[in-house]
Amino acid sequence: MNNLLVLIQCKDRVGLVTNITRVLAQHQLNIIAMREFVDEVEQKFFTRIECSGTVEDYKILKEELLSSLPIAADVHLIPKAEKSIALLVTKEFHCLADILVRAHFKTLGAEVKCVIGNHETLKEFAEKFDVPFFYVSHEDKSKADFENEITNLLSNYQLDYIVLAKFMRILSPAFNAQYTHKIINIHHSFLPAFIGASPYKQAFERGVKIIGATAHFVTNNLDEGPIISQQTIHVNHTYDAKQMAVAGREIEKAVLSKALEQVLEDRVFVSGNKTIVFE
Amino acid sequence: MNNLLVLIQCKDRVGLVTNITRVLAQHQLNIIAMREFVDEVEQKFFTRIECSGTVEDYKILKEELLSSLPIAADVHLIPKAEKSIALLVTKEFHCLADILVRAHFKTLGAEVKCVIGNHETLKEFAEKFDVPFFYVSHEDKSKADFENEITNLLSNYQLDYIVLAKFMRILSPAFNAQYTHKIINIHHSFLPAFIGASPYKQAFERGVKIIGATAHFVTNNLDEGPIISQQTIHVNHTYDAKQMAVAGREIEKAVLSKALEQVLEDRVFVSGNKTIVFE
Amino acid sequence: MNNLLVLIQCKDRVGLVTNITRVLAQHQLNIIAMREFVDEVEQKFFTRIECSGTVEDYKILKEELLSSLPIAADVHLIPKAEKSIALLVTKEFHCLADILVRAHFKTLGAEVKCVIGNHETLKEFAEKFDVPFFYVSHEDKSKADFENEITNLLSNYQLDYIVLAKFMRILSPAFNAQYTHKIINIHHSFLPAFIGASPYKQAFERGVKIIGATAHFVTNNLDEGPIISQQTIHVNHTYDAKQMAVAGREIEKAVLSKALEQVLEDRVFVSGNKTIVFE
Amino acid sequence: MNNLLVLIQCKDRVGLVTNITRVLAQHQLNIIAMREFVDEVEQKFFTRIECSGTVEDYKILKEELLSSLPIAADVHLIPKAEKSIALLVTKEFHCLADILVRAHFKTLGAEVKCVIGNHETLKEFAEKFDVPFFYVSHEDKSKADFENEITNLLSNYQLDYIVLAKFMRILSPAFNAQYTHKIINIHHSFLPAFIGASPYKQAFERGVKIIGATAHFVTNNLDEGPIISQQTIHVNHTYDAKQMAVAGREIEKAVLSKALEQVLEDRVFVSGNKTIVFE
Repeated sequence: MNNLLVLIQCKDRVGLVTNITRVLAQHQLNIIAMREFVDEVEQKFFTRIECSGTVEDYKILKEELLSSLPIAADVHLIPKAEKSIALLVTKEFHCLADILVRAHFKTLGAEVKCVIGNHETLKEFAEKFDVPFFYVSHEDKSKADFENEITNLLSNYQLDYIVLAKFMRILSPAFNAQYTHKIINIHHSFLPAFIGASPYKQAFERGVKIIGATAHFVTNNLDEGPIISQQTIHVNHTYDAKQMAVAGREIEKAVLSKALEQVLEDRVFVSGNKTIVFE
Repeated sequence: MNNLLVLIQCKDRVGLVTNITRVLAQHQLNIIAMREFVDEVEQKFFTRIECSGTVEDYKILKEELLSSLPIAADVHLIPKAEKSIALLVTKEFHCLADILVRAHFKTLGAEVKCVIGNHETLKEFAEKFDVPFFYVSHEDKSKADFENEITNLLSNYQLDYIVLAKFMRILSPAFNAQYTHKIINIHHSFLPAFIGASPYKQAFERGVKIIGATAHFVTNNLDEGPIISQQTIHVNHTYDAKQMAVAGREIEKAVLSKALEQVLEDRVFVSGNKTIVFE
Repeated sequence: MNNLLVLIQCKDRVGLVTNITRVLAQHQLNIIAMREFVDEVEQKFFTRIECSGTVEDYKILKEELLSSLPIAADVHLIPKAEKSIALLVTKEFHCLADILVRAHFKTLGAEVKCVIGNHETLKEFAEKFDVPFFYVSHEDKSKADFENEITNLLSNYQLDYIVLAKFMRILSPAFNAQYTHKIINIHHSFLPAFIGASPYKQAFERGVKIIGATAHFVTNNLDEGPIISQQTIHVNHTYDAKQMAVAGREIEKAVLSKALEQVLEDRVFVSGNKTIVFE
Repeated sequence: MNNLLVLIQCKDRVGLVTNITRVLAQHQLNIIAMREFVDEVEQKFFTRIECSGTVEDYKILKEELLSSLPIAADVHLIPKAEKSIALLVTKEFHCLADILVRAHFKTLGAEVKCVIGNHETLKEFAEKFDVPFFYVSHEDKSKADFENEITNLLSNYQLDYIVLAKFMRILSPAFNAQYTHKIINIHHSFLPAFIGASPYKQAFERGVKIIGATAHFVTNNLDEGPIISQQTIHVNHTYDAKQMAVAGREIEKAVLSKALEQVLEDRVFVSGNKTIVFE
C-alpha cells in the first residue's frame, strides 16, 4: 500500500470536492490529508490530496477524475518517488553544502544529479559526495555559448528542478524559458526590497534593522518570479555589509532548504506570478 | 447570502469527505475553504468547512449530514454570528486592555459581556468601555463561596467563553467542570516549562534565553489543559525577573489575542488533551 | 540616589572611555550599564552610560566631561524624567490605543499631551483617557494652512517627540524641518520594500510570504528617514490585501511601541541616515 | 597590528572601567567594541573589550591590569587564534555535518581535531573531511571504561572545547568534572521543558505548539548546566513525534552553531549556573 498525491487546479465551481473525492472513494483510496484553496478573485480552485491505498491503473484514475469534473482541469497523480535536481553554483558553499548533506543522508527528497559551477571553487567539495561537478566558465565567451554549455550538460539528466544555489550569473530569458517553473533561485534579500546586485551592501547603506532571503521560481524578469518562501532576521548598527552577509547565509540556506522541501513534496502551485503553498 | 461554518468530528472512514461535500453541493453551498485532518493514531477525522450560500433550514441540513455519514458524528452548523465572552482579571491590565480595545472597535469577533475582578484595580478602566465590572473579593470567604459568587454573575449572561485574562486565582475542579472547554487561560510561560507560580522568577533563576506564553483551555489539572497557542521571545542576562515579566506581557497579550481569534472563529477542535487548530 | 544617563557622540580617538569614566568615577558615579560603539568607517564614537549616584551640579559635570575629551563632542546628561509626546492620527485605532493604554497605566515612559486627528473618528476614544483631541481637517485648505494649524496646536506643549500613529497625510519638508529627529512614523511595510501608498496592496500583488512594519524618524524624503525598528510576520496565499492589513496591525503596533520605548529611554542615536540603538 | 580580546570578571566597584581602560590607552590599544555588565544582585562585574593595536608583552599587560584593579579579578588576554574542538556523536548527522562543513570552509573559528562516536554510523562522513573518527562502543563495558577510552583519546589533543553533537549517552559527573565549562551539549527541547529522554515524544504527548532546542554547558546534573542559547519553532497538530524531530533538527543545528560561535569568539562568561553572553 502506497501513498498517492493528487494535485488538481481548475476554474472554481460548486461541487468539485464531491466529484473528486467520490472518485477517490470508489477506488478505495483513503484521504490522509487534504488541502483546498479557492482564489476568490481569480475564481480558481486548487487542491492537494494525500491518499493511502493502491492504485491499479493511474491512467484510468486520471481519466475518471477528469471526466468527473464539469470543466477542464489540470490533474496530476504523483506516486511517491524520489525526484532529481541539478545545482548551479559560483563560489559560496553554504547552500550547496546544506543540500548535498541532506541528499547524502537521504533527507532531501531528491537526488542531486550534478553540480555546475562557473568557478572551480566548489568542485572538490561536491566530489566528496560523489556528485559530478562540471566547471563551465563564463569568461571569454558569449552568454549564449555559456548557457548552451549548461543546457547541454543538463540535458544528460532527467531533471525535475534546477536549483540556483548562490549562482551569481544572470540567466537569459531564453535560457529560463526552457525550464518554466523548474528553476528555483535563492535571492539574498527579502524581495522586493533590494532587487539586483549587492543587496547586503544596499541594506547596510539604508540602515535596515532586518535582513532577509527569498526563494522563488525564476522567470524572465530577474528577481521577480513567484515567491516560494521568505525569512528575515534582525541585525543592528554593529553589522557592516560583510557581517550582514555572514548572518544572511544562515537564512539563505534555511529558506532555500524550506522551499526545496515544499517543492519536492509537491506542495507548491504556481498561479500567475504567485504561489499557493500547502504547508 | 451568508457564510456558514460546518464542523464535523468522528471516527475516520473512507469516503467521509465525499458524503459530506455531496450534501453541501446538493444545497448549493459552495466551499470557500476546507480543512481536514485525520489523526492516524486515534483514527479520528476532523473537518472545518466554510461555505457560501443560503441555508433554508439548519435542522434539515444537519440531519442530512448526519444521515449521510456511516457512523456517529459531532456535526455543528454555525452561522456567522458574534459571540459573547466574560473576562476574569486580577490587577494586570495588558490582556484586559487588548481585548476591550478590540471589542470596542469591533475587531474581536465577540462582545465582552462583563469583567469580574478579584481586585478593584481595573474597574475604572473596564467602565471606560461601558463594560460592567464586578468586584468579587476572594478574601474572608471560602473558595466555594468565592466561586459561587462568580458563577452567579456569569449565569446572567449567555456566554460562549470565559477568558482568564491574567486572573491570578486557581479555580477549583468543580468550577471548571461547569464550563468544559469554555474557559481559556493565558499562562505566562511556554508550558510545560515553569508550571505553577512565579514562572518569570523560575525562568530568571534557571537562566533561560527564551521566555514564553501559553493560551490553553482550562481543565482540572492546573496548567495542563489543551494548548491552543504559544509564543516565545528572546531574553538575555541583562533581564531580571521583573524585566522578563515586562517583556513577557507583550507576548502574553499577543498569544491570548491569537488564541481568542482562533477560538472565536471556530478554528479549534479539542481532542483528548490536545487541540487541532485550523489556522 | 538617582539614575543618570550620559550620552556622548564624537570623532573616535584612543582613550575616550578612560577620560569619560575617570570623570564619572571622580563624581562617585557608578556605571550600571555601559554601551559603546565605534563606527569604524566614519571614525565616530558613541556611548550611552547609565550611572547610579548623586549629581550635585549637572553643568559642572558636563563641563568636566567636555574638557576631559581631546576633541569636540556632543555630551548629554539626562536625569530620569518622564517625557512628553503628541500623537497624530487618522482613522485607525490600533497604534493610538496601544500608546494611550500604556500611558494610562504609566508604562509608556511618556505623557501623551494631545492627539491631533485629521478625522474625528478617534476623538471619543482619546477622550476616554482624558487626553485632549484636536480635530484638524485637511479638507478645503492648503497644505500649508493645514500644517500651520497643527504647528500652532503643538506649540502649546513642551514636546519631546511627535508620533505619527498611522497618520495618513504626507507632511511637507517645511513642517518636518521644524522637528528634526523628533517625529517618529510607523510605516506599514518592511522598508525599503513597498515605499509609498498602499503597501499591503503592493505586497498582495507581489505575492510576498512576509509582511512587515518599520518605525523611523521622519526626514524630508518620505519613508526614507533613519530606521529605528522593524519586524516581519509570515503570511501566505490565503491572505488578500485586507487580511494582510489586519495581520499587519499587530506588528505595526508592536514595532511602534518598541521604537518608542527605545527612543524614550534615550537608547537611539541618529548618525547620518541611520540609527545606533543600544538595546 | 592585531586584535586583542580582554575578558575581566570580578566583584563590582566604582571606577573599574576607568582603571582598565587607562591601562589599555597607555599601551596605545584602541577600543573597538566594549561590553560591560554588572550583575546587581550578585554585585559582580563582567567586561569584554576588543582592542586593536600591538601588544609587546602579554604578561606585563596582564600584570598592569591586575594591579590597576582594587580587588582580585579574573583577567584573560586572548590574542586572535583559532581554537581546537572535539566532537562526540552517536548516529544523527545534522549537527556534525553543520560543524564539519563550517570548519572545512574556515568559517567555524575552530579546528575539529577529532570525532568520537559510540556508533560507527558517521565514520565515513567525518573522514570525507579528513577528520579522524574514533569508534568507541559503549557496549559490553562499564561506563567508567567507556569514558576512560574517550578521555584517553581526547588527551591526545590540546582542546578548548568538547562538543556533544547529538551524543546520546549520559556522561558521568566524574567525566564532566575533568572539563568544567568546556563541554557544550545540544538538548532537543527548550529546557527546562522536557528534561531527559525522548523530548519530542513528550512534546507530542503534551500537544505543545512550539518545540525548541537548547545549547548549554554540561555540569553534573543532566540538562541543568548554564544555558548558552535557545531557539523555538512553531509546530501544530499535524506533527507527530517523528515529524517534530525532523523539524527540530533544523533548530538543533542552528542553536548549536550559534552557541559555538559565541563560545569560540569568547563572548560567553559563566556565572554560577547562568551565562552572560555579549552578543
